[in-house]
Amino acid sequence: MANDTKQLLLEQGMAMLLRQGYHDLGVAQLLEATSIPKGSFYHHFKSKEDFGLQVIDRYMEEVHGGLDHCLGDQTLPPLQRVRRFFEMTEEKYRGEGYLGCLLGGLGQELSGISEAFRKKVEWCFSEIARRIACCLDEAIERGELSANTDTHTMAQLLINCWEGAALRTRLQRDPAPLRQMLDFYFRSTSA
Amino acid sequence: MANDTKQLLLEQGMAMLLRQGYHDLGVAQLLEATSIPKGSFYHHFKSKEDFGLQVIDRYMEEVHGGLDHCLGDQTLPPLQRVRRFFEMTEEKYRGEGYLGCLLGGLGQELSGISEAFRKKVEWCFSEIARRIACCLDEAIERGELSANTDTHTMAQLLINCWEGAALRTRLQRDPAPLRQMLDFYFRSTSA
Repeated sequence: MANDTKQLLLEQGMAMLLRQGYHDLGVAQLLEATSIPKGSFYHHFKSKEDFGLQVIDRYMEEVHGGLDHCLGDQTLPPLQRVRRFFEMTEEKYRGEGYLGCLLGGLGQELSGISEAFRKKVEWCFSEIARRIACCLDEAIERGELSANTDTHTMAQLLINCWEGAALRTRLQRDPAPLRQMLDFYFRSTSA
Repeated sequence: MANDTKQLLLEQGMAMLLRQGYHDLGVAQLLEATSIPKGSFYHHFKSKEDFGLQVIDRYMEEVHGGLDHCLGDQTLPPLQRVRRFFEMTEEKYRGEGYLGCLLGGLGQELSGISEAFRKKVEWCFSEIARRIACCLDEAIERGELSANTDTHTMAQLLINCWEGAALRTRLQRDPAPLRQMLDFYFRSTSA
Protein backbone atom coordinates (compact mmCIF):
# COMPACT_ATOMS: atom_id res chain seq x y z
CA MET A 1 0.00 0.00 0.00
CA ALA A 2 2.81 2.39 1.00
CA ASN A 3 4.63 1.22 -2.09
CA ASP A 4 1.55 1.91 -4.25
CA THR A 5 1.48 5.48 -2.90
CA LYS A 6 5.13 5.98 -3.73
CA GLN A 7 4.70 4.55 -7.24
CA LEU A 8 1.68 6.79 -7.85
CA LEU A 9 3.68 9.87 -6.80
CA LEU A 10 6.56 8.86 -9.07
CA GLU A 11 4.31 8.15 -12.07
CA GLN A 12 2.29 11.33 -11.71
CA GLY A 13 5.46 13.31 -11.01
CA MET A 14 7.10 11.92 -14.15
CA ALA A 15 4.21 13.19 -16.31
CA MET A 16 4.08 16.57 -14.59
CA LEU A 17 7.86 17.12 -14.64
CA LEU A 18 7.93 16.29 -18.35
CA ARG A 19 5.36 18.96 -19.12
CA GLN A 20 6.15 21.63 -16.55
CA GLY A 21 9.78 21.15 -15.62
CA TYR A 22 11.11 21.11 -12.07
CA HIS A 23 10.65 24.63 -10.72
CA ASP A 24 7.15 25.13 -12.08
CA LEU A 25 5.91 21.99 -10.34
CA GLY A 26 5.04 22.51 -6.68
CA VAL A 27 4.75 19.60 -4.25
CA ALA A 28 1.27 20.90 -3.32
CA GLN A 29 0.15 20.60 -6.96
CA LEU A 30 1.44 17.03 -7.13
CA LEU A 31 -0.38 16.14 -3.90
CA GLU A 32 -3.59 17.67 -5.20
CA ALA A 33 -3.33 15.74 -8.48
CA THR A 34 -2.81 12.44 -6.63
CA SER A 35 -5.04 13.12 -3.56
CA ILE A 36 -2.13 12.07 -1.36
CA PRO A 37 -1.49 13.87 1.97
CA LYS A 38 1.69 15.89 2.49
CA GLY A 39 2.95 13.69 5.33
CA SER A 40 2.88 10.72 3.01
CA PHE A 41 5.06 12.53 0.45
CA TYR A 42 7.69 13.32 3.08
CA HIS A 43 7.51 9.77 4.36
CA HIS A 44 8.70 8.54 0.97
CA PHE A 45 10.94 11.44 -0.10
CA LYS A 46 13.37 13.54 1.93
CA SER A 47 12.78 16.63 -0.22
CA LYS A 48 11.59 17.79 -3.63
CA GLU A 49 15.13 17.23 -4.91
CA ASP A 50 15.12 13.66 -3.64
CA PHE A 51 11.75 13.18 -5.36
CA GLY A 52 13.05 14.56 -8.67
CA LEU A 53 16.10 12.31 -8.56
CA GLN A 54 13.91 9.26 -7.83
CA VAL A 55 11.61 10.17 -10.72
CA ILE A 56 14.69 10.00 -12.95
CA ASP A 57 15.47 6.52 -11.53
CA ARG A 58 11.89 5.47 -12.34
CA TYR A 59 12.24 6.91 -15.86
CA MET A 60 15.48 4.98 -16.33
CA GLU A 61 13.74 1.72 -15.35
CA GLU A 62 11.50 2.26 -18.39
CA VAL A 63 14.46 3.14 -20.59
CA HIS A 64 16.33 0.00 -19.56
CA GLY A 65 13.18 -2.03 -20.17
CA GLY A 66 13.00 -0.62 -23.69
CA LEU A 67 16.71 -1.31 -24.27
CA ASP A 68 16.31 -4.90 -22.99
CA HIS A 69 13.36 -5.43 -25.33
CA CYS A 70 14.95 -3.92 -28.45
CA LEU A 71 18.67 -4.62 -28.15
CA GLY A 72 18.02 -8.17 -26.98
CA ASP A 73 15.93 -9.03 -30.04
CA GLN A 74 18.22 -11.50 -31.81
CA THR A 75 15.84 -11.77 -34.78
CA LEU A 76 16.97 -8.32 -35.99
CA PRO A 77 20.42 -7.21 -37.20
CA PRO A 78 22.17 -5.05 -34.52
CA LEU A 79 21.71 -1.66 -36.24
CA GLN A 80 18.00 -2.32 -36.69
CA ARG A 81 17.73 -3.16 -32.99
CA VAL A 82 19.25 0.21 -32.10
CA ARG A 83 16.94 2.02 -34.49
CA ARG A 84 13.96 0.12 -33.11
CA PHE A 85 14.74 1.39 -29.61
CA PHE A 86 14.53 5.01 -30.79
CA GLU A 87 11.40 4.30 -32.83
CA MET A 88 9.80 2.86 -29.69
CA THR A 89 10.85 5.98 -27.82
CA GLU A 90 9.17 8.08 -30.50
CA GLU A 91 5.97 6.04 -29.98
CA LYS A 92 6.19 6.84 -26.27
CA TYR A 93 6.60 10.55 -27.08
CA ARG A 94 3.51 10.40 -29.28
CA GLY A 95 1.45 9.02 -26.39
CA GLU A 96 2.58 11.98 -24.27
CA GLY A 97 1.80 14.61 -26.91
CA TYR A 98 5.39 15.03 -28.14
CA LEU A 99 6.82 16.70 -25.05
CA GLY A 100 10.33 15.36 -25.68
CA CYS A 101 12.63 13.67 -23.19
CA LEU A 102 12.53 14.08 -19.41
CA LEU A 103 16.32 13.68 -19.15
CA GLY A 104 16.91 16.47 -21.67
CA GLY A 105 14.35 18.71 -19.98
CA LEU A 106 15.66 18.32 -16.44
CA GLY A 107 19.26 18.32 -17.67
CA GLN A 108 18.79 21.70 -19.36
CA GLU A 109 16.80 23.27 -16.57
CA LEU A 110 18.87 22.14 -13.60
CA SER A 111 22.45 21.35 -14.59
CA GLY A 112 23.55 24.98 -14.24
CA ILE A 113 22.44 25.15 -10.62
CA SER A 114 22.44 21.59 -9.23
CA GLU A 115 25.44 19.27 -9.26
CA ALA A 116 23.17 16.44 -8.09
CA PHE A 117 20.94 16.69 -11.18
CA ARG A 118 23.85 17.45 -13.53
CA LYS A 119 25.70 14.29 -12.48
CA LYS A 120 22.55 12.18 -12.40
CA VAL A 121 21.41 13.09 -15.93
CA GLU A 122 24.92 12.75 -17.34
CA TRP A 123 25.18 9.33 -15.74
CA CYS A 124 21.86 8.29 -17.34
CA PHE A 125 23.01 9.26 -20.82
CA SER A 126 26.32 7.45 -20.26
CA GLU A 127 24.47 4.31 -19.23
CA ILE A 128 22.26 4.39 -22.35
CA ALA A 129 25.33 5.02 -24.52
CA ARG A 130 27.20 2.12 -22.93
CA ARG A 131 24.40 -0.28 -23.86
CA ILE A 132 24.06 1.06 -27.39
CA ALA A 133 27.83 0.88 -27.91
CA CYS A 134 27.70 -2.87 -27.09
CA CYS A 135 25.11 -3.34 -29.84
CA LEU A 136 27.26 -1.30 -32.25
CA ASP A 137 30.19 -3.60 -31.41
CA GLU A 138 28.00 -6.49 -32.49
CA ALA A 139 27.20 -4.55 -35.69
CA ILE A 140 30.95 -4.45 -36.42
CA GLU A 141 31.23 -8.22 -35.88
CA ARG A 142 28.37 -8.76 -38.35
CA GLY A 143 29.94 -6.43 -40.92
CA GLU A 144 27.16 -3.82 -40.63
CA LEU A 145 29.65 -1.17 -39.51
CA SER A 146 33.24 -0.70 -40.63
CA ALA A 147 35.77 -2.26 -38.24
CA ASN A 148 37.44 1.04 -37.37
CA THR A 149 34.21 2.61 -36.04
CA ASP A 150 34.61 4.19 -32.60
CA THR A 151 31.44 2.66 -31.17
CA HIS A 152 31.62 4.57 -27.90
CA THR A 153 31.71 7.93 -29.70
CA MET A 154 29.06 6.85 -32.23
CA ALA A 155 26.70 5.77 -29.43
CA GLN A 156 27.15 9.06 -27.57
CA LEU A 157 26.63 10.97 -30.83
CA LEU A 158 23.39 9.12 -31.54
CA ILE A 159 22.00 9.97 -28.09
CA ASN A 160 23.07 13.60 -28.35
CA CYS A 161 21.56 14.12 -31.80
CA TRP A 162 18.40 12.40 -30.60
CA GLU A 163 18.15 14.75 -27.63
CA GLY A 164 18.39 17.77 -29.92
CA ALA A 165 15.70 16.34 -32.17
CA ALA A 166 13.58 15.65 -29.07
CA LEU A 167 13.87 19.30 -28.03
CA ARG A 168 12.71 20.38 -31.49
CA THR A 169 9.84 17.89 -31.34
CA ARG A 170 8.81 19.47 -28.04
CA LEU A 171 8.88 22.92 -29.65
CA GLN A 172 6.94 21.82 -32.75
CA ARG A 173 4.76 19.09 -31.19
CA ASP A 174 5.70 17.09 -34.27
CA PRO A 175 7.71 13.89 -34.74
CA ALA A 176 9.41 14.93 -38.01
CA PRO A 177 12.73 16.05 -36.39
CA LEU A 178 13.12 12.61 -34.76
CA ARG A 179 12.61 10.73 -38.02
CA GLN A 180 14.89 13.03 -40.01
CA MET A 181 17.61 12.55 -37.43
CA LEU A 182 17.36 8.75 -37.41
CA ASP A 183 17.31 8.61 -41.23
CA PHE A 184 20.43 10.78 -41.42
CA TYR A 185 22.31 8.90 -38.71
CA PHE A 186 21.66 5.40 -40.01
CA ARG A 187 22.23 6.40 -43.64
CA SER A 188 25.59 7.90 -42.61
CA THR A 189 26.83 5.12 -40.34
CA SER A 190 26.01 2.00 -42.33
CA ALA A 191 29.03 0.26 -43.83
CA MET B 1 21.11 56.51 -20.14
CA ALA B 2 17.71 54.76 -19.98
CA ASN B 3 18.87 52.65 -22.90
CA ASP B 4 22.11 51.77 -21.08
CA THR B 5 20.06 50.54 -18.14
CA LYS B 6 17.92 48.37 -20.39
CA GLN B 7 20.98 46.94 -22.15
CA LEU B 8 22.63 46.19 -18.80
CA LEU B 9 19.54 44.31 -17.62
CA LEU B 10 19.39 42.32 -20.87
CA GLU B 11 23.11 41.46 -20.81
CA GLN B 12 23.12 40.45 -17.16
CA GLY B 13 19.83 38.62 -17.61
CA MET B 14 21.21 36.68 -20.56
CA ALA B 15 24.13 35.38 -18.46
CA MET B 16 21.92 34.56 -15.47
CA LEU B 17 19.20 32.87 -17.53
CA LEU B 18 21.83 30.74 -19.27
CA ARG B 19 23.16 29.44 -15.96
CA GLN B 20 20.02 29.33 -13.83
CA GLY B 21 17.13 29.01 -16.24
CA TYR B 22 13.94 31.07 -16.05
CA HIS B 23 12.16 30.01 -12.88
CA ASP B 24 15.23 29.95 -10.67
CA LEU B 25 16.04 33.57 -11.56
CA GLY B 26 14.11 36.12 -9.55
CA VAL B 27 13.76 39.72 -10.69
CA ALA B 28 15.06 40.80 -7.24
CA GLN B 29 18.26 38.82 -7.82
CA LEU B 30 18.75 40.44 -11.21
CA LEU B 31 18.23 43.91 -9.72
CA GLU B 32 20.71 43.17 -6.94
CA ALA B 33 23.32 41.96 -9.46
CA THR B 34 22.93 45.12 -11.54
CA SER B 35 22.23 47.64 -8.72
CA ILE B 36 19.21 48.83 -10.68
CA PRO B 37 16.00 49.83 -8.84
CA LYS B 38 12.79 47.85 -9.31
CA GLY B 39 10.88 50.78 -10.84
CA SER B 40 13.46 51.00 -13.59
CA PHE B 41 12.99 47.31 -14.46
CA TYR B 42 9.24 47.75 -14.81
CA HIS B 43 9.75 50.91 -16.83
CA HIS B 44 11.57 48.86 -19.48
CA PHE B 45 9.72 45.54 -19.18
CA LYS B 46 6.05 44.81 -18.65
CA SER B 47 6.75 41.59 -16.75
CA LYS B 48 9.34 38.90 -16.18
CA GLU B 49 7.95 37.09 -19.23
CA ASP B 50 8.39 40.22 -21.37
CA PHE B 51 11.95 40.49 -20.05
CA GLY B 52 12.71 36.85 -20.89
CA LEU B 53 11.36 37.24 -24.41
CA GLN B 54 13.43 40.39 -24.94
CA VAL B 55 16.55 38.61 -23.67
CA ILE B 56 15.95 36.07 -26.45
CA ASP B 57 15.73 38.95 -28.97
CA ARG B 58 19.05 40.28 -27.64
CA TYR B 59 20.57 36.80 -27.91
CA MET B 60 19.36 36.53 -31.50
CA GLU B 61 21.04 39.83 -32.39
CA GLU B 62 24.34 38.15 -31.46
CA VAL B 63 23.43 35.02 -33.40
CA HIS B 64 22.59 37.03 -36.52
CA GLY B 65 25.85 38.97 -36.10
CA GLY B 66 27.75 35.68 -36.05
CA LEU B 67 25.83 34.40 -39.08
CA ASP B 68 26.53 37.66 -40.98
CA HIS B 69 30.23 37.35 -40.15
CA CYS B 70 30.64 33.67 -41.04
CA LEU B 71 28.14 33.03 -43.84
CA GLY B 72 29.08 36.28 -45.57
CA ASP B 73 32.77 35.36 -45.75
CA GLN B 74 33.19 34.85 -49.49
CA THR B 75 36.84 33.77 -49.04
CA LEU B 76 35.64 30.39 -47.71
CA PRO B 77 33.68 27.65 -49.50
CA PRO B 78 30.02 27.57 -48.31
CA LEU B 79 30.25 24.44 -46.14
CA GLN B 80 33.30 25.83 -44.35
CA ARG B 81 31.38 29.04 -43.66
CA VAL B 82 28.60 27.05 -42.00
CA ARG B 83 31.08 25.04 -39.96
CA ARG B 84 32.90 28.23 -38.96
CA PHE B 85 29.66 29.63 -37.51
CA PHE B 86 29.30 26.65 -35.19
CA GLU B 87 32.99 26.74 -34.27
CA MET B 88 32.56 30.41 -33.32
CA THR B 89 29.55 29.43 -31.24
CA GLU B 90 31.70 26.83 -29.48
CA GLU B 91 34.25 29.56 -28.69
CA LYS B 92 31.43 31.61 -27.17
CA TYR B 93 30.37 28.61 -25.06
CA ARG B 94 33.96 28.22 -23.84
CA GLY B 95 33.97 31.82 -22.61
CA GLU B 96 30.80 31.09 -20.65
CA GLY B 97 32.11 27.87 -19.07
CA TYR B 98 30.31 25.52 -21.46
CA LEU B 99 26.76 26.14 -20.28
CA GLY B 100 25.25 25.32 -23.67
CA CYS B 101 22.68 27.32 -25.61
CA LEU B 102 20.16 29.75 -24.12
CA LEU B 103 17.55 28.85 -26.77
CA GLY B 104 17.81 25.16 -25.93
CA GLY B 105 17.68 25.86 -22.21
CA LEU B 106 14.64 28.13 -22.27
CA GLY B 107 12.97 26.00 -24.94
CA GLN B 108 13.20 22.90 -22.78
CA GLU B 109 12.22 24.58 -19.55
CA LEU B 110 9.29 26.65 -20.79
CA SER B 111 7.77 25.19 -23.94
CA GLY B 112 5.53 22.80 -22.01
CA ILE B 113 3.88 25.64 -20.07
CA SER B 114 4.24 28.81 -22.17
CA GLU B 115 3.03 29.18 -25.74
CA ALA B 116 4.81 32.54 -25.93
CA PHE B 117 8.22 30.99 -25.23
CA ARG B 118 7.50 27.86 -27.27
CA LYS B 119 6.67 29.90 -30.37
CA LYS B 120 9.51 32.36 -29.81
CA VAL B 121 12.22 29.70 -29.48
CA GLU B 122 10.86 27.70 -32.41
CA TRP B 123 10.85 30.86 -34.52
CA CYS B 124 14.50 31.55 -33.58
CA PHE B 125 15.61 28.08 -34.67
CA SER B 126 13.65 28.43 -37.92
CA GLU B 127 15.35 31.75 -38.63
CA ILE B 128 18.83 30.29 -38.09
CA ALA B 129 17.92 27.28 -40.25
CA ARG B 130 16.63 29.55 -43.03
CA ARG B 131 19.98 31.36 -43.21
CA ILE B 132 22.01 28.16 -43.10
CA ALA B 133 19.84 26.59 -45.81
CA CYS B 134 20.71 29.53 -48.13
CA CYS B 135 24.40 28.79 -47.61
CA LEU B 136 23.79 25.08 -48.27
CA ASP B 137 22.05 26.08 -51.53
CA GLU B 138 25.24 27.87 -52.47
CA ALA B 139 27.19 24.70 -51.56
CA ILE B 140 25.05 22.81 -54.11
CA GLU B 141 25.82 25.43 -56.78
CA ARG B 142 29.55 25.03 -56.06
CA GLY B 143 29.31 21.23 -56.19
CA GLU B 144 30.11 20.79 -52.49
CA LEU B 145 26.76 19.08 -51.90
CA SER B 146 24.89 16.74 -54.20
CA ALA B 147 22.18 18.50 -56.22
CA ASN B 148 19.32 16.48 -54.71
CA THR B 149 20.13 17.58 -51.13
CA ASP B 150 17.08 18.87 -49.24
CA THR B 151 18.86 21.93 -47.86
CA HIS B 152 15.96 22.99 -45.65
CA THR B 153 15.89 19.62 -43.87
CA MET B 154 19.69 19.43 -43.70
CA ALA B 155 19.88 22.88 -42.10
CA GLN B 156 17.22 22.00 -39.51
CA LEU B 157 19.00 18.73 -38.81
CA LEU B 158 22.31 20.49 -38.22
CA ILE B 159 20.75 22.86 -35.71
CA ASN B 160 18.92 20.08 -33.92
CA CYS B 161 21.97 17.85 -33.62
CA TRP B 162 23.96 20.88 -32.42
CA GLU B 163 21.40 21.57 -29.72
CA GLY B 164 21.66 18.01 -28.43
CA ALA B 165 25.44 18.25 -28.39
CA ALA B 166 25.13 21.61 -26.57
CA LEU B 167 22.99 19.99 -23.88
CA ARG B 168 25.62 17.29 -23.40
CA THR B 169 28.36 19.94 -23.26
CA ARG B 170 26.36 21.65 -20.50
CA LEU B 171 26.15 18.35 -18.60
CA GLN B 172 29.85 17.52 -19.05
CA ARG B 173 31.30 21.07 -19.09
CA ASP B 174 33.33 19.81 -22.03
CA PRO B 175 33.37 20.78 -25.73
CA ALA B 176 33.97 17.24 -27.07
CA PRO B 177 30.29 16.52 -27.93
CA LEU B 178 30.17 19.65 -30.12
CA ARG B 179 33.27 18.70 -32.10
CA GLN B 180 32.19 15.08 -32.54
CA MET B 181 28.84 16.25 -33.85
CA LEU B 182 30.33 18.70 -36.36
CA ASP B 183 32.88 16.11 -37.57
CA PHE B 184 30.11 13.56 -38.10
CA TYR B 185 27.75 15.96 -39.83
CA PHE B 186 30.24 17.44 -42.27
CA ARG B 187 31.84 14.07 -43.00
CA SER B 188 28.38 12.68 -43.81
CA THR B 189 27.04 15.56 -45.89
CA SER B 190 29.96 16.37 -48.16
CA ALA B 191 29.46 15.33 -51.78
